[in-house]
Amino acid sequence: MTRSSAFVPSGVISLTTDFGHKGPFIGTMKGQILARFHDAKIVDITHECSVHWPDEAGFWISRAYRYFPSGSVHLAVVDPGVGTERDIIALVHAGHVFLAPDNGLLAPLAESGPDCRVFRLDTAAYQRFGITTVSATFHGRDIFAPLAAELASARRRPDELGPRTADLVPSLLEEPRLSAGRIKGVIVTADNFGNLISNVDASLIAQLDSPMVVVAGHRIPFARTYGAVQPGDYLALINSFGVLEIARAEQSAAAGLGLERGAPLVVEDVTKRTGS
Amino acid sequence: MTRSSAFVPSGVISLTTDFGHKGPFIGTMKGQILARFHDAKIVDITHECSVHWPDEAGFWISRAYRYFPSGSVHLAVVDPGVGTERDIIALVHAGHVFLAPDNGLLAPLAESGPDCRVFRLDTAAYQRFGITTVSATFHGRDIFAPLAAELASARRRPDELGPRTADLVPSLLEEPRLSAGRIKGVIVTADNFGNLISNVDASLIAQLDSPMVVVAGHRIPFARTYGAVQPGDYLALINSFGVLEIARAEQSAAAGLGLERGAPLVVEDVTKRTGS
Amino acid sequence: MTRSSAFVPSGVISLTTDFGHKGPFIGTMKGQILARFHDAKIVDITHECSVHWPDEAGFWISRAYRYFPSGSVHLAVVDPGVGTERDIIALVHAGHVFLAPDNGLLAPLAESGPDCRVFRLDTAAYQRFGITTVSATFHGRDIFAPLAAELASARRRPDELGPRTADLVPSLLEEPRLSAGRIKGVIVTADNFGNLISNVDASLIAQLDSPMVVVAGHRIPFARTYGAVQPGDYLALINSFGVLEIARAEQSAAAGLGLERGAPLVVEDVTKRTGS
Repeated sequence: MTRSSAFVPSGVISLTTDFGHKGPFIGTMKGQILARFHDAKIVDITHECSVHWPDEAGFWISRAYRYFPSGSVHLAVVDPGVGTERDIIALVHAGHVFLAPDNGLLAPLAESGPDCRVFRLDTAAYQRFGITTVSATFHGRDIFAPLAAELASARRRPDELGPRTADLVPSLLEEPRLSAGRIKGVIVTADNFGNLISNVDASLIAQLDSPMVVVAGHRIPFARTYGAVQPGDYLALINSFGVLEIARAEQSAAAGLGLERGAPLVVEDVTKRTGS
Repeated sequence: MTRSSAFVPSGVISLTTDFGHKGPFIGTMKGQILARFHDAKIVDITHECSVHWPDEAGFWISRAYRYFPSGSVHLAVVDPGVGTERDIIALVHAGHVFLAPDNGLLAPLAESGPDCRVFRLDTAAYQRFGITTVSATFHGRDIFAPLAAELASARRRPDELGPRTADLVPSLLEEPRLSAGRIKGVIVTADNFGNLISNVDASLIAQLDSPMVVVAGHRIPFARTYGAVQPGDYLALINSFGVLEIARAEQSAAAGLGLERGAPLVVEDVTKRTGS
Repeated sequence: MTRSSAFVPSGVISLTTDFGHKGPFIGTMKGQILARFHDAKIVDITHECSVHWPDEAGFWISRAYRYFPSGSVHLAVVDPGVGTERDIIALVHAGHVFLAPDNGLLAPLAESGPDCRVFRLDTAAYQRFGITTVSATFHGRDIFAPLAAELASARRRPDELGPRTADLVPSLLEEPRLSAGRIKGVIVTADNFGNLISNVDASLIAQLDSPMVVVAGHRIPFARTYGAVQPGDYLALINSFGVLEIARAEQSAAAGLGLERGAPLVVEDVTKRTGS
């Protein structure tokens, strides 16, 4: 482990869930954090992840954490298996800690290299972390929030959760790969503007000479930003999180193309296609 | 009043409203709090309570406050009578203070026992609390936020609001009672997953030998958590806030049953039913 | 410039955008602020402004800022031209700083009098503010958040952004004026209750002896607050932000009248009308 990848708490805790904003769910998680760590800086990443689908939360957290101070604790709870035998894990990477159910959510980070260490919560840790009362249906408040507070306040270290592990539940979302000049990916989510955000990384697209997106019967060329094309035109771009996004200038690509989470797309190399 | 129930400010202020997230309503409340108390720790509980219906806000705040640090100020504004003659009250209970219109919202807490004290805001208190400008339609920003800041910062005490009172506006929501082996309750709200949350307390259900929920023509058995039944199956459970919840594994019970706030339900005792 | 209008940072940063709550957009802006200024007090004004329409954000920020502590930095990003040649400006007014794209958003404040000073970001300032990596599509995170952190932390002053300017992009929204006893305005937005909020200032309406609103074929009289009329009745009122609002007691005026952003309205003087 390099020195820069050690976890030195900054006091910042981020929250990513599928809880939405109805009811006291997020609020009581924050209450429990503040009850243990009065000076916590709590930041909502999003609470509008697709429900019961850990992959969107994992997608975003693996790309968003680097915009937070080193030493942040990132709590991500999309947890259809709450109260069953599924485990809870802490992943340490690049000076950040990630807490989540072991359901594939943290799979994108688990592959991030040799500095990545994962610990599996054991029941003996409940006492070390002062966790006494646990409901069957809300571990976000009863387990995750206390864990985050203890780690962010530097009272406990990630390796005190339990044994180190390497055997995590994989993601259901297949990583796109370049094959025969084509990249197959999927739409992971749409943003508030109806921009369709895919799991195709910029580094893959950079290997094509002249990339063109094929989706829902449309062929969509690349541009640098929304204002580079006429209002109403579709464009593909590498977005601010380094992945392929399909947009429609001043309109919603999601509505225009009738696409949503899970839709497949292909990136072709026009040069090669023409040459064949 | 026991020592533990005295209010010793923690600096935490929680907000519960029906304002939603459009417009600067919540933001300017926070601005007014920070203008008076720079170190306030402000936590949103929810701003998506049913509009114009104080009972959902009262339901949640009475069950959520215990997850906040002792010494928190809980501001709850669902206030269809804003600007009319309705009063504003502060309720002190278990080391927390609750501020709300006197419209039934705090009724669930007002019955919480001998340590509960309620004070009614009088106009002379405006000067003590430094409240000078009050609009006719936004007391959340103009009265509640300043009151909360003064109390949370320890500059003023709850008993400085005005005279003590015991005569509060009651809730419109009837408390469920066990009668002839049956409990009649209502759905108070649905969460982001479509789980239907009722006002039937776990302590009532514990008095039945073999409880079964009857709602919308369905008979729904109890289970411990969502993952304990097959995807698509309905289940009843005691949720993480200690009340009866009707869920559908990995789906929305609200959509599946076509139910929403206000729908009646019955919990029967199957043992007694069979025996009769 | 009067002494009271100088900017003395309070450490408070407000955020107003059209980003909604899906995805990590707001969260990573906050992460970037905290990475530079750990003690920042960040307050969301709203993230549900009409997308791609700077005027609603400008309308709200120009009316909401005064409820924040003096010395606040207000970051407003509704930015359809992100990544194109549009400029970024900082406006200093009444002890507050406003950061936004130069697309008309800050036009309502730019006309606020002699104490108002505007600075235009130049590329040399990137180095002064420590901005190194800028995406084509998310200046909120990559430029605005760092600028806000540097200003709010008092490390940099607004005049270090670049040259002073007076030549701003105007608003598309025409300011209502009184002419021949009539005021023509428009609906700017609806709130969570369906109250329709217009751009007609109270000071204009005060010039009419007996004002009456005409909108969508309805004639709507004024009242002081929602509870002053019967449930279901329409009313016009001066709202808590000093503008004309059309409401329906305990119901949604937006749904009842079928109106939304952009709808025209007229305020007539009934006295004059009757007299003619």
